[in-house]
Amino acid sequence: MSGPPAAVAAVRVAVRHCLRDLPPGPVLVACSGGADSLALAAATAFEARTAGRPAGLVTVDHGLHPDSAAVADRVVALGHALGLDPVRAVRVAVGRTGGLEAAARTARYAALESVAADVGAVAVLLAHTLDDQAETVLLGLARGSGTRSLAGMAAARGLLHRPLLGVARETVRQACADEDLPVWEDPANADDRFLRVRVRRDVLPLLESALGPGVAAALARTARAARDDADALDALAAQADPFADGSAAVEDLLAAPAALRRRWLRSAALAVGCSASALTAGHVDALEALLLDWRGQGPVHLPGGAEGARACGRLVLTPHPDR
Amino acid sequence: MSGPPAAVAAVRVAVRHCLRDLPPGPVLVACSGGADSLALAAATAFEARTAGRPAGLVTVDHGLHPDSAAVADRVVALGHALGLDPVRAVRVAVGRTGGLEAAARTARYAALESVAADVGAVAVLLAHTLDDQAETVLLGLARGSGTRSLAGMAAARGLLHRPLLGVARETVRQACADEDLPVWEDPANADDRFLRVRVRRDVLPLLESALGPGVAAALARTARAARDDADALDALAAQADPFADGSAAVEDLLAAPAALRRRWLRSAALAVGCSASALTAGHVDALEALLLDWRGQGPVHLPGGAEGARACGRLVLTPHPDR
Repeated sequence: MSGPPAAVAAVRVAVRHCLRDLPPGPVLVACSGGADSLALAAATAFEARTAGRPAGLVTVDHGLHPDSAAVADRVVALGHALGLDPVRAVRVAVGRTGGLEAAARTARYAALESVAADVGAVAVLLAHTLDDQAETVLLGLARGSGTRSLAGMAAARGLLHRPLLGVARETVRQACADEDLPVWEDPANADDRFLRVRVRRDVLPLLESALGPGVAAALARTARAARDDADALDALAAQADPFADGSAAVEDLLAAPAALRRRWLRSAALAVGCSASALTAGHVDALEALLLDWRGQGPVHLPGGAEGARACGRLVLTPHPDR
Repeated sequence: MSGPPAAVAAVRVAVRHCLRDLPPGPVLVACSGGADSLALAAATAFEARTAGRPAGLVTVDHGLHPDSAAVADRVVALGHALGLDPVRAVRVAVGRTGGLEAAARTARYAALESVAADVGAVAVLLAHTLDDQAETVLLGLARGSGTRSLAGMAAARGLLHRPLLGVARETVRQACADEDLPVWEDPANADDRFLRVRVRRDVLPLLESALGPGVAAALARTARAARDDADALDALAAQADPFADGSAAVEDLLAAPAALRRRWLRSAALAVGCSASALTAGHVDALEALLLDWRGQGPVHLPGGAEGARACGRLVLTPHPDR
């Protein structure tokens, strides 16, 4: 008896491992109609049936292109054909806050969580692949905002699970072709106004050719290690935070490793009203210079009118006077 | 009174900050004759004279190209012309262990340390720039071996100091041109058998054009944050290591954050004789599966014939029986 093609088997195994670790109850697959999420939907239908677990599908129509409603209809039909139940299409309104990609993502995740609550799902499965993870790490790297920005996407966070993070996009696409699923090509995937599209089309292939094959897998491993490290240090920093009422003893800050000290300075700045997006490594450098390079200098100006200053052996952060 | 050109001033300021933090005593500049290390030599000559600190120069002749002795002679002459004293040229024999780049680096650093000891130097200054740091991070990223591999080069480690890690290569080259220093172009810098050359020539420019300017600076910031995080977690892991006689309680390993657990597993494997270069994230995954995904499986085979197994509530690592 011959089994399924290798790619189909690989996707199914990844889904099986994910389902095995979930509590009993229905799962939902988030499906755009693209190759990755179709392969995930088919594998989930198969594995959930084998495991006797209910599995449904949800597709989010962002209304961003003319035939989005037609695409959603086709995904719904396919969900029924795969034996998934319930199958839902949700139309969302996408704002522009933080850019189109970010706004679409925010709207999509809100819709997924709402449908999940509605059907009592224990998990929503997302089809991000190893290559998506590699792209996310490169995008984080280009921001240069620390280990957390390299951490990529979590394999599991709340209801959201990403069973295919360890599977190459090529394998997932092959599984889709092997099962003859009707792929919808999202025009946004070819729109090079999006940074991610440029990373996928230009940057990763060049990295592979310059540095050798396996770069995407290496980036995904980096994401995992960076996530572990950031989780551990964020937790430690929160436990031992010496800031109280916006101030901390200089000697406590100096005695701590830089990794904790810089996290404390950052969170103290956020606590006095600096916005996370405006607060840069440069601001943290300036605060740290009040400790490491103290020459009696004046206060450090922070985003939103907050200030950091050193006085009487303490580092004191104060919000904008009108806040 | 007009000051020096902006690029010259930037290099000098970076050197001044470095010298300020050093104990009293002579410093040495490591100089290949390339633009970066010539600019560093000139800036160090100027700043050391101003600060009343003795400063010398050392050039390492790797004997890897036909005119290497002539290049060393020219660097020596330039060192004297800049007023540096002592000025030394050292010829080293480069092996092939770990590849030509690594072998040349090992030989070079050994020679630098030896000359430093000989002249009683408190520091050896190296001319690595922000762009060199960015390249190092990209090379580490491609290895995917965790936060430490993203940490780039240290600004200070033992006697070695890198005052220009925050200065763009373009600025350093401009300083060199402004001072009309006679640059030697190392043919190895154009030899694309070297991974680093491909990263410099192809990868970074493409990253800048795809992701926007500032990628090199972002990579350098990433290096610093990754180094801080890795230092803090390596220190914590060493402090709290639950392995004794090659074994640790499963419950202690499970209770710890992944960042510590995986460091402990790695150091335990090294302690039973696995070589650092052969030990991969995959081996650590397999050991961790004995904890996180325990189904009574057999021992995990490690490089060099070592093994990891779970027994009686403990994870036990044993060396190759003949070791």
